[in-house]
Amino acid sequence: MENRLAQVREVLLMGPGPSCVPPRVYEALARPTIGHLDPFFIAVMDDIKVLLRQLMGTNNPLTLPISGTGSAGMETCFVNLVERGDPVLVLANGVFGQRMADVAGRLGADVDVLEFEWGTPALVEPVKSRLAAKDYAIVAVVHAETSTGVCNPVGEIGALVKGTRARYLVDTVTSLGGIAVAMDAWGADALYSGTQKCLSCPPGLSPLSFSERAVAKLQARKSKVPNWYLDLSMIIKYWEGAKRVYHHTAPINMLYGLYQALLCIFEEGIERVFARHRNAHEQLVAGLAALGLEMLVRPDCRLPMLNAVKVPEGVDEAVVRSALLKEHRIEIGAGLGPLAGKIWRVGLMGHTARPENVARFLDALAAELKNAG
Amino acid sequence: MENRLAQVREVLLMGPGPSCVPPRVYEALARPTIGHLDPFFIAVMDDIKVLLRQLMGTNNPLTLPISGTGSAGMETCFVNLVERGDPVLVLANGVFGQRMADVAGRLGADVDVLEFEWGTPALVEPVKSRLAAKDYAIVAVVHAETSTGVCNPVGEIGALVKGTRARYLVDTVTSLGGIAVAMDAWGADALYSGTQKCLSCPPGLSPLSFSERAVAKLQARKSKVPNWYLDLSMIIKYWEGAKRVYHHTAPINMLYGLYQALLCIFEEGIERVFARHRNAHEQLVAGLAALGLEMLVRPDCRLPMLNAVKVPEGVDEAVVRSALLKEHRIEIGAGLGPLAGKIWRVGLMGHTARPENVARFLDALAAELKNAG
Repeated sequence: MENRLAQVREVLLMGPGPSCVPPRVYEALARPTIGHLDPFFIAVMDDIKVLLRQLMGTNNPLTLPISGTGSAGMETCFVNLVERGDPVLVLANGVFGQRMADVAGRLGADVDVLEFEWGTPALVEPVKSRLAAKDYAIVAVVHAETSTGVCNPVGEIGALVKGTRARYLVDTVTSLGGIAVAMDAWGADALYSGTQKCLSCPPGLSPLSFSERAVAKLQARKSKVPNWYLDLSMIIKYWEGAKRVYHHTAPINMLYGLYQALLCIFEEGIERVFARHRNAHEQLVAGLAALGLEMLVRPDCRLPMLNAVKVPEGVDEAVVRSALLKEHRIEIGAGLGPLAGKIWRVGLMGHTARPENVARFLDALAAELKNAG
Repeated sequence: MENRLAQVREVLLMGPGPSCVPPRVYEALARPTIGHLDPFFIAVMDDIKVLLRQLMGTNNPLTLPISGTGSAGMETCFVNLVERGDPVLVLANGVFGQRMADVAGRLGADVDVLEFEWGTPALVEPVKSRLAAKDYAIVAVVHAETSTGVCNPVGEIGALVKGTRARYLVDTVTSLGGIAVAMDAWGADALYSGTQKCLSCPPGLSPLSFSERAVAKLQARKSKVPNWYLDLSMIIKYWEGAKRVYHHTAPINMLYGLYQALLCIFEEGIERVFARHRNAHEQLVAGLAALGLEMLVRPDCRLPMLNAVKVPEGVDEAVVRSALLKEHRIEIGAGLGPLAGKIWRVGLMGHTARPENVARFLDALAAELKNAG
């Protein structure tokens, strides 16, 4: 069998993730594998926890990366917190809110879904009414909805949840490392992310944090967590304490990559990283307007790192997307669900969010729109 | 924060995994990340499936790596096959058999555990009696028990299971790539492995295969798989078919690593790889005997890749193990459960299984036993 790896060529990753990876993160992935109980490796793990807490805006001791992709982080939050029959409120305005409802339902939760139109944000008032009407165990929302490019008002919703007995679960897969995440200030009890978006590390890990209130719910469970692999009460014994207890073999080299990716972000400075995302986004929106293209989401709730661009009348979005990949080696994403065929999703995540990348994309798109016209 | 990665130094990994990684696999991990729906990447995925089938001895279409470590593979097999109340028989003679019982129990299975003494193999006769006495939905066994170094008679047990309605589930985490795995010949219906043992790739993925009988049980489920992340009925739509459907973002670079690791094995030749494991094992056993050390497991059911060595009277195993790591940069494993303090676990897995490594270990062990004496 021919070895295909020699032919892998760099692609400018401007889709919904994975994003471009800085050279130092690739180098980190290739550092020598050592044992998962090696004291040197445990020191690396401890540093990762410190860096994640800082980026997530939390002091939670239970802060660590789950050995799976972002969706494994979602699964971990629900499977540790939900017991059969628990009333769960999910706010859904895209694929990932819907996925939360599916995950919780499979675990036997009593799921209510509060839906909002795709491309618009979750509204605070209807949430308020729901919370007044029913005593929820969990309220869940996506901060940055990757399927639409909408930023949901997680802080305002968190303020409402605070007055209830519910645990507040927030998805920050696409936001972490690109815009401010303030877990403790939001009153979030469970939060997860992914490595392949604004952290600019290849996919494979899901940073996660649980508040003391979340840990208390986990500890008070009547039944064992129905998922051995993702049971945080066991995983934490490997990630904390003077004597570490083996649970599963940690993905050593992926953790090297995450560690280096976090160091890169703090070396550049969080505020500078956020500004770089904002600037790239503004450059993109201006360039798209000059091409006569419109954004799906209204300005005040647009995400900088995920841009939903309306496909012009009469243009086959798949033809343009495929030409961008084949002719220009630029990947962008398609619309999902009700937005399939109607939008492109242009990612400006992490290392991708640079002026030269935006300019290269705008040039390529202009050329392909001309071909399509 | 100081960057620790510059100081990571190569360790000779002779524990229960991870094992040493060949340079070409490290290089593969650092190849450019591309999109999970990029046609080039899908071609790599298709090659991985072909290579895995060959190594596992199966023609099963549903053969793919799960996005998690070996324990995620175990979880995937049970969570897809078990429905609440299903009678499950687990054969247990070590940590990983016990873990299977825990995983199945959490999913609501009616679990019977047939226990055998740690360090001895599962026996065929008691299995026969159990199968005659009860109509099991699943029979599960570990091929190579990593906690004791015992090889279980999975072929003979499979022949018994064949006569029943049960699905036969086999753990090959430690065996795959080191000794023959013959999934179809054994009559196994669900099989999983890990990358960090004899495949000599860093930890992070779990190759898995389901027979048509296993897929039929999955398709006939009355309830949804209670685990969104590991639901094979959805995962398969990303791994198979003309049009691939996004499920979760695949761990691209880890899959590059697995692909290269599999290519390395087939380039060397499977039979040669197995012989290299056997030879290293024989060299080790002879060297240990010369030092006056004994093996835990009787010769006819010893694994070549996981050697349980009895700690001599009066020697503190942890002191020797720690000195091997600190002074010689060689990692070996401790005993677990009832074998804690009583054995060392010396791994000869994949790239580690070479005469020069065995010689280096024997010299270092001789020196440290002298220090301890």
